[in-house]
Amino acid sequence: MDREGLTEEERVREANERFYLAMNSGEIGEMDEVWAAEESAICVHPGREALFGYERIRESWQIIFSSANSMSIAAGNERITITGEIAWVSCIETISLMMEGGLAAAAAQATNIFRRTEHGRWLMLVHHASPIPFTTQDEWPDVIN
Amino acid sequence: MDREGLTEEERVREANERFYLAMNSGEIGEMDEVWAAEESAICVHPGREALFGYERIRESWQIIFSSANSMSIAAGNERITITGEIAWVSCIETISLMMEGGLAAAAAQATNIFRRTEHGRWLMLVHHASPIPFTTQDEWPDVIN
Repeated sequence: MDREGLTEEERVREANERFYLAMNSGEIGEMDEVWAAEESAICVHPGREALFGYERIRESWQIIFSSANSMSIAAGNERITITGEIAWVSCIETISLMMEGGLAAAAAQATNIFRRTEHGRWLMLVHHASPIPFTTQDEWPDVIN
Repeated sequence: MDREGLTEEERVREANERFYLAMNSGEIGEMDEVWAAEESAICVHPGREALFGYERIRESWQIIFSSANSMSIAAGNERITITGEIAWVSCIETISLMMEGGLAAAAAQATNIFRRTEHGRWLMLVHHASPIPFTTQDEWPDVIN
């Protein structure tokens, strides 16, 4: 545990949650706080090929955030693995989209890789999300219900 | 470079290629050589939720290998990132399936995480593959054409 009383696992979990809060916020500045602003950063949006480098990744979030659709996302079933200064989180994303035609829902499997900085912050290096079959609303995280 | 004259990046690339050779071989023993046989191992097959632990992952490959369909897979567009004893490879998978109804083809975006053992081998800890739109045959790797 560090001086703030958090274990590394709790810090990684926080970094992962912060990513989903950034998605919900729709503010690119929040996304900037989450990611490592590096060429080696990789982002795979559901059903898409990988984007390389934070510059391109950032543009993709700006496009998503500028969409008229209102999006709400939550992560659950987190599994955290830490090896030295690298950690990854496997989690299930539940996504609800308010579109012109009505409410749509989707689920995705995500793998998120983080690196610990010298200052003890965990920054996102890889986000890979892929579509999975959608389950019943009863199994959704509380934040969506 | 180590005593065999390979850089770490070349060793990671080899480990990644060995995984796809194991898929093509259809032999579970080959898959055993690629993976870290650990509870922390994670495998996401295209369109599916994550499997946790090598025991379950191994079972899934046995099911895939026991299928009557003949599968051929190749990886391309590899991007390798190494941070200490952890490395990951982003690559595009091109898959051809010989089924009763004829030949089918598909593509996937993969993120594969490896860890270096004490003996310098890189073992797979995470495989995450997700469907992407299929491109023309001209863009396929030579091994498939």
